[in-house]
Amino acid sequence: MKKPVTEPEQEDPDQQIDWQDAVQWNEQGLVPAIARDARSGAVLMLAWMNRAALEETVRSGYAVYWSRSRGRLWRKGETSGHRQRVREIRLDCDGDTLLLSVEQEGGVACHTGRRHCFYRRLEVDGERPVWRVVEAVIVDPAELYGGGRDPQAADRKPEKRGAEKGDD
Amino acid sequence: MKKPVTEPEQEDPDQQIDWQDAVQWNEQGLVPAIARDARSGAVLMLAWMNRAALEETVRSGYAVYWSRSRGRLWRKGETSGHRQRVREIRLDCDGDTLLLSVEQEGGVACHTGRRHCFYRRLEVDGERPVWRVVEAVIVDPAELYGGGRDPQAADRKPEKRGAEKGDD
Repeated sequence: MKKPVTEPEQEDPDQQIDWQDAVQWNEQGLVPAIARDARSGAVLMLAWMNRAALEETVRSGYAVYWSRSRGRLWRKGETSGHRQRVREIRLDCDGDTLLLSVEQEGGVACHTGRRHCFYRRLEVDGERPVWRVVEAVIVDPAELYGGGRDPQAADRKPEKRGAEKGDD
Repeated sequence: MKKPVTEPEQEDPDQQIDWQDAVQWNEQGLVPAIARDARSGAVLMLAWMNRAALEETVRSGYAVYWSRSRGRLWRKGETSGHRQRVREIRLDCDGDTLLLSVEQEGGVACHTGRRHCFYRRLEVDGERPVWRVVEAVIVDPAELYGGGRDPQAADRKPEKRGAEKGDD
């Protein structure tokens, strides 16, 4: 264990400016937000936030994202009921990425019915790399969305699906 | 433990198309790549990749990103020597985010000399939320960059710094 050069708990110079202005919003007014499981640390998904989404997330204590495909606020779990209780929000060195620690209600973060969205692993053993599905579906997507959604949707290409990741 | 609806190991329909075409590159030809520690699972940083960066990452076994600020490939650790040995690459459900599991050489992923880039935590106890620095600097940035870099750089705002996160 290396001796720290600085103490961990310090005033951040960014405290002088508004907390929302410390975030480096991109040209669309968005910032990527990584959600990880508050207990296991597992990376669940990546979505996007605008100012209103971050503001409501902090106020409500539940993750609210900006759905780029639908052009509106997306209260994660609004259809499936699988909300994300936010335990911590972090900002990176450049201020252009957020990291949320969440309690994922229902244990399923992905709209495909898997625990998380990163279920394809690159395998490079063969002649050319291939993506292989390595995580099981633990809840039928039809069940997640009350039968009102095509359960095959998760197996189709995103551009045909017209839905965004964890889109519920 | 819920009974899986599907078995985890399956053919991915995307195997039919080229592995790089399964990635949904954005309008700039980029995709966000989250790097996590292969052992602890800690989220280290988020950077961006284009096709060439991903191709070289897979070929070399070390993380190569696309530096948006410099407009060129960024071989992580090219200055500091703190490379990232890539153990696994995952793709999310929509194909628009990569997740890398890496062994971070030197144990310092952030150009500020911290283990990871997410060292500011939002505290909402007071009247208004504030970002607080909660991770120690374990390597002096001046040491990381061989004295050729302003050691104060890490304490300045990104727009004044002109450098990207983990920019080494």
